[in-house]
Amino acid sequence: MPKLIVKNTEITDSALNAIAHLPTRSLKSVVDPDFFKKLADKDFMRIAIFLAQKGYDEGGCPIGGVIIDNETRQIVGKGHNTLVQESHPYNHGETSAIRDAGRIDFSKTTIFTSLSPCDVCATLIYMRGFPRVVIGDITSASGNEDMLRAKNIHVDILEDQLGIDIYQEYRSENPDLDIEDWKGLAAVK
Amino acid sequence: MPKLIVKNTEITDSALNAIAHLPTRSLKSVVDPDFFKKLADKDFMRIAIFLAQKGYDEGGCPIGGVIIDNETRQIVGKGHNTLVQESHPYNHGETSAIRDAGRIDFSKTTIFTSLSPCDVCATLIYMRGFPRVVIGDITSASGNEDMLRAKNIHVDILEDQLGIDIYQEYRSENPDLDIEDWKGLAAVK
Repeated sequence: MPKLIVKNTEITDSALNAIAHLPTRSLKSVVDPDFFKKLADKDFMRIAIFLAQKGYDEGGCPIGGVIIDNETRQIVGKGHNTLVQESHPYNHGETSAIRDAGRIDFSKTTIFTSLSPCDVCATLIYMRGFPRVVIGDITSASGNEDMLRAKNIHVDILEDQLGIDIYQEYRSENPDLDIEDWKGLAAVK
Repeated sequence: MPKLIVKNTEITDSALNAIAHLPTRSLKSVVDPDFFKKLADKDFMRIAIFLAQKGYDEGGCPIGGVIIDNETRQIVGKGHNTLVQESHPYNHGETSAIRDAGRIDFSKTTIFTSLSPCDVCATLIYMRGFPRVVIGDITSASGNEDMLRAKNIHVDILEDQLGIDIYQEYRSENPDLDIEDWKGLAAVK
């Protein structure tokens, strides 16, 4: 069957949003691998932002993550925070994407995250051998970039204003949820 | 309906093993709360060991975790490592039990783990506000006890030889799996 998104398909927010919403294992049936090969880092970050937007639309915390194979540039895992949606205490953008990728060799991949990683996600990133992390927002939260670099991980900051805006709106609307997501329910007064 | 395990039921390995295998949300239908109230810490640790044994029997890494409410002594979450069974890169004993418990206030609970926690699990334990951790094996692996104490978490070592034996047998049978579980596939030569 011809794929909906092919090599010559224009790189638009509409196409990247559709990719964010497709299950990872469906991508090969809908998107030509050559389309992914022409995506720049900022495009993969934009997919992570659309995953964050999906989380926001579901009433959750808007943080998304995308993992690509460094050689083929294909997406091998992606996901978003589901603290609210699944009552899941630590399914953040990064943990969600890593869980989606499954039992693979992460030393051949790059992880894009819409928000600076928390302590758990940063620890998981170095424990699973990622060589590179791309971070889309250090304005709303930051802190673990130096720890990651000390673990010999290449850290790129690639801020996306759309993601920053979504996170700031969510934080002003749901300050308690934001605290719970970072520090647990006990920290919510 | 009368419950199978009641207040006067003897605390045997058979009873604790059945509790390990029951879904957490089924416990209230099968086990009288008064039975849990008479369990000592070593009994909850034994349940974690039986969860580890369940993981071993499924061909996975034998590590289990149990979370109880400090006041009621009821189990609010439990689980075991599913690296093999679910192709899950970080579903360890502790992460599994915390995911099972869901979005609760962990500052009122204790987590029992059959094996000294890895960096990710130790980080999650302090980020989610646990006041106390009970560890069943620092012979096979250790290292994060001091880090947890530095985060003001009360750490008790309560070794269970059954759990140590199961872990040592697994490690000698599956050394590559053991390395992958701790360090990721890239670390396996």
